[in-house]
Amino acid sequence: MLCRQRIGVREGTPGMTTDEMPADITEDTVTDAVVASFAGTADPRLRECLSVLTRHLHAAVRELEPTLAEWDAALAFLTATGQKCDATRQEFVLLSDVLGVSALVENLNHRTSAGATEATVLGPFHLTESPRRELGDTIDELGHGESCVVTGHVRSVDGTPLTGATVDVWQATEDGFYDVQQPGVQPPGNGRGLFTTDDEGRFWFRTVVPAHYPIPVDGPVGTLLAGTGRGPYRPAHVHFIAAAEGHTPVTTHIFVAGSPYLDADAVFAVKRSLVREFAPVDDAAAAERYGVVNPFRHADVDLVLEAG
Amino acid sequence: MLCRQRIGVREGTPGMTTDEMPADITEDTVTDAVVASFAGTADPRLRECLSVLTRHLHAAVRELEPTLAEWDAALAFLTATGQKCDATRQEFVLLSDVLGVSALVENLNHRTSAGATEATVLGPFHLTESPRRELGDTIDELGHGESCVVTGHVRSVDGTPLTGATVDVWQATEDGFYDVQQPGVQPPGNGRGLFTTDDEGRFWFRTVVPAHYPIPVDGPVGTLLAGTGRGPYRPAHVHFIAAAEGHTPVTTHIFVAGSPYLDADAVFAVKRSLVREFAPVDDAAAAERYGVVNPFRHADVDLVLEAG
Repeated sequence: MLCRQRIGVREGTPGMTTDEMPADITEDTVTDAVVASFAGTADPRLRECLSVLTRHLHAAVRELEPTLAEWDAALAFLTATGQKCDATRQEFVLLSDVLGVSALVENLNHRTSAGATEATVLGPFHLTESPRRELGDTIDELGHGESCVVTGHVRSVDGTPLTGATVDVWQATEDGFYDVQQPGVQPPGNGRGLFTTDDEGRFWFRTVVPAHYPIPVDGPVGTLLAGTGRGPYRPAHVHFIAAAEGHTPVTTHIFVAGSPYLDADAVFAVKRSLVREFAPVDDAAAAERYGVVNPFRHADVDLVLEAG
Repeated sequence: MLCRQRIGVREGTPGMTTDEMPADITEDTVTDAVVASFAGTADPRLRECLSVLTRHLHAAVRELEPTLAEWDAALAFLTATGQKCDATRQEFVLLSDVLGVSALVENLNHRTSAGATEATVLGPFHLTESPRRELGDTIDELGHGESCVVTGHVRSVDGTPLTGATVDVWQATEDGFYDVQQPGVQPPGNGRGLFTTDDEGRFWFRTVVPAHYPIPVDGPVGTLLAGTGRGPYRPAHVHFIAAAEGHTPVTTHIFVAGSPYLDADAVFAVKRSLVREFAPVDDAAAAERYGVVNPFRHADVDLVLEAG
């Protein structure tokens, strides 16, 4: 006989009192229990972040009621995303990008006032320091693409030209690749330049018109895009960071008007105010002045910074 | 002179018409734009999951307004979590556990009716098939700990004993380690057993009283726990999966009453209904009957399954 009474457990052994009972973790109590577990966090901002993330994550899980297999698949996806990262590949940033979170964080951090150049995402290719170049230099060291001149000013919102402002530029080639993606094909620093505005706040340089290009799709993010019928392309653009003393720097893109994918940027970075014509120009005298072959393309880009 | 007019761009070059303008991605439009990007997802459940997760993730980001540095730190944490995973370590499951998400998913998937044994998390240690053992066998192949007898029935909610039900058991040692954590110290299968109930629905086996133990803290989850002042401990417990024909299987733990950390389980798995006395017994005849030394400990565990 194996029942409880027969092996010496006294009848009426008192159970635990209510005071001794542990908290009951149920679907109704678990979220508050997790948030309460962060009560001892020394850093109040960390505590706030973990509490808010926990509440929203739990809310998503309650809304979806994933099966155990679905939740396992989600964790396996995140694991694979982490394992795809290495010194030159950041798949979690890419995931943040394609879910529009990078764009949202950028927008929340750069609420510019009217008239200032809008910010957009830094992107993953600002890996190296741009070579310092003189105004009028070319950033294209390959010489394959269609000649292009970019001109512009850095100004304060009140219109004042900003002398001695820095303009950091980086872009893909006419084939859609950054230098760091083609070691051995492109010299380091190709498509990049760090310029300083002249005494009228002007900058100008030579380049090629960049092409639209796909984000890397050989990892979990590529699988996600394929599974959702989304394309991997970004519309053609040139990256800029403009900075001047006494002003808030801006990190932004200038998009090439008419580029494919302006309405379907894989990373949700397009703003109307950042689209510029890269206009065809047929002007032999201007071409000679800039040191490009005629005809050429021209984009004019004013970068307007907020004071403070 | 470098202004736009001087290099041949015609005055009045028409800009894009409104129809040609791309969508403007701002903090107000980005969430809807991301959700809309999933419109082409072939699998409607995947589309729902991604849409809901995107909305909640964006809501958390809007509430927190992380700096770019904070968001980078979050992505670096997730990257490190993925990179800590290998064949025997699943740090993302551990992260899900300490954020209470595993417990929530388990609860949502196993809403048992009154009278049925409540489910709790599977945990990471059900890695190997438990060795089939005979009723009354010991699952403790080391012989160090305090003798313990576990007895019980598998029943249907209406009270009917379930003959031929399987009871899969796994637990840590009295030192708080599973066999898979101590290769070379514990033989494979130590602390594990797969039993079949007799013709009265009964099961019984010998073991040792398991100890509370810490989850692994040498990875990013350990850093998170340390940073939040949380302990890594789980209260002492024995894992069970009970299954019987015509019934829904249950995956659960039985917690040792009086164990430390019943109120602070690092993975939020404790339910009051799953706490059992592992009572001291001084009964030489019973000890002889079970093949244990007197005195010993005894826990009685009825596992009650829902039909269907």
